[in-house]
Amino acid sequence: MTKGVLLDLAGVLYEGDTAIAGAVAAVGRLRAAGLPLRFLTNTTRRPRRAILARLDRLGFEVAADELFTPARAARAVLSERGLAPHLLIHPDLAEDFAGSAAGGPDLAVVVGDAGPFFTFESLNAAFRVLDGGAAFLALAANRAFRDEDGLRSMDAGAFVAALEYAANRKAEVLGKPAPGYFAAALASMGVAAGDAVMVGDDAEADVAGALKAGVGAAVLVRTGKYTGGDETRAAPPPSATLAGIGAAVDWILSR
Amino acid sequence: MTKGVLLDLAGVLYEGDTAIAGAVAAVGRLRAAGLPLRFLTNTTRRPRRAILARLDRLGFEVAADELFTPARAARAVLSERGLAPHLLIHPDLAEDFAGSAAGGPDLAVVVGDAGPFFTFESLNAAFRVLDGGAAFLALAANRAFRDEDGLRSMDAGAFVAALEYAANRKAEVLGKPAPGYFAAALASMGVAAGDAVMVGDDAEADVAGALKAGVGAAVLVRTGKYTGGDETRAAPPPSATLAGIGAAVDWILSR
Repeated sequence: MTKGVLLDLAGVLYEGDTAIAGAVAAVGRLRAAGLPLRFLTNTTRRPRRAILARLDRLGFEVAADELFTPARAARAVLSERGLAPHLLIHPDLAEDFAGSAAGGPDLAVVVGDAGPFFTFESLNAAFRVLDGGAAFLALAANRAFRDEDGLRSMDAGAFVAALEYAANRKAEVLGKPAPGYFAAALASMGVAAGDAVMVGDDAEADVAGALKAGVGAAVLVRTGKYTGGDETRAAPPPSATLAGIGAAVDWILSR
Repeated sequence: MTKGVLLDLAGVLYEGDTAIAGAVAAVGRLRAAGLPLRFLTNTTRRPRRAILARLDRLGFEVAADELFTPARAARAVLSERGLAPHLLIHPDLAEDFAGSAAGGPDLAVVVGDAGPFFTFESLNAAFRVLDGGAAFLALAANRAFRDEDGLRSMDAGAFVAALEYAANRKAEVLGKPAPGYFAAALASMGVAAGDAVMVGDDAEADVAGALKAGVGAAVLVRTGKYTGGDETRAAPPPSATLAGIGAAVDWILSR
């Protein structure tokens, strides 16, 4: 019996600025069934404000508290540990860190998907801060994504790997597949991991990540970044691999 | 009994454009003892021509055939396998690949220390070629180096790691510590690995790399990139850790 649902955003509910067919109705059916929902994205290119505005524009009714972003998780870590961030992120995301720089002497390098703002200079600056002993937080560790032209592009995880290799240290990943990210979303709706279902298009970060975090079931959808055979490339494998969010909601409601 | 010596360049014989004190005389003593020498650098910032000119300017007599560079190793691999290179290197190194682009349909991404020419665009272009199935050659896999201002900078290995992570593939490393790089230098002087000694300032690439390749002994010098305790951070550890090239030559000649 499912008691709560975790949904990925890009590639599951929308692609770029277009809702995936049937997605608005599918989310509506979960709401109508009385299931609490949380939306877990690994996007670090856009601030919360822009993500919420896009969801609203596309017809999804999502409350601010229902949206989990890696930047939100990072803010919590910086605050708990009294760290000031050295940000290596896309400038569009900077507003989500407003005010967090007023920290003590201890720094944390925070890496998001800076895209074209990953330069030798910006990476090297972060490397030197790490070399000086700063904490090392990765908003996400995704390998690649499909950009607006349909071309595969290097995602934040690749640049985190570059810094990890140079500094010979490991980053603490805050977004999916970090167990703590799933745990925070589950706790906020008061649902035990085993009673929840995750729906995502990323076999590694969404599906295997959720299952490793104890989530009861995880559905891989064949939209977004999905490419044929993804369901065999991650472990644990998906509980089900379905055409899209509509079929995923059918599956959840019939369990 | 030592029958041949392998010497690293930067940090062992010179720093920037200055010979390390006693280095010219030390190399002269190895020559006077009748030992064949090979010079193995992981530098991919400068072409062979410029490295040989610097050695000459500083008073080291080094023949072109005695100098091993990762670009030389890459040329051999491209030629043997009939691959055309997609170069992600510093433009200064391009002359070492002149003519090699006239290959067949099969590509190899070749990554060197491109420094400021590592951009999101150049990395992403290489990533897409890798994604298309190209071979993946890394000229070197060094983590970091000390630049002319004395600051630590990210080296080629960090950007190789970024591409490896994004493409979920491993690069074939051609420079130190690749066993084949040491083997090619040893073969060119007709000396068995066990009868040779390596001298370097990098505990990982020079020292542990040579020992893993079967080289009889490896001396770590406390010049160049050496920082206190390096001798305990790589495995196998150095056969000896000495003040510099002068002491290393004393050690070799007294074995």
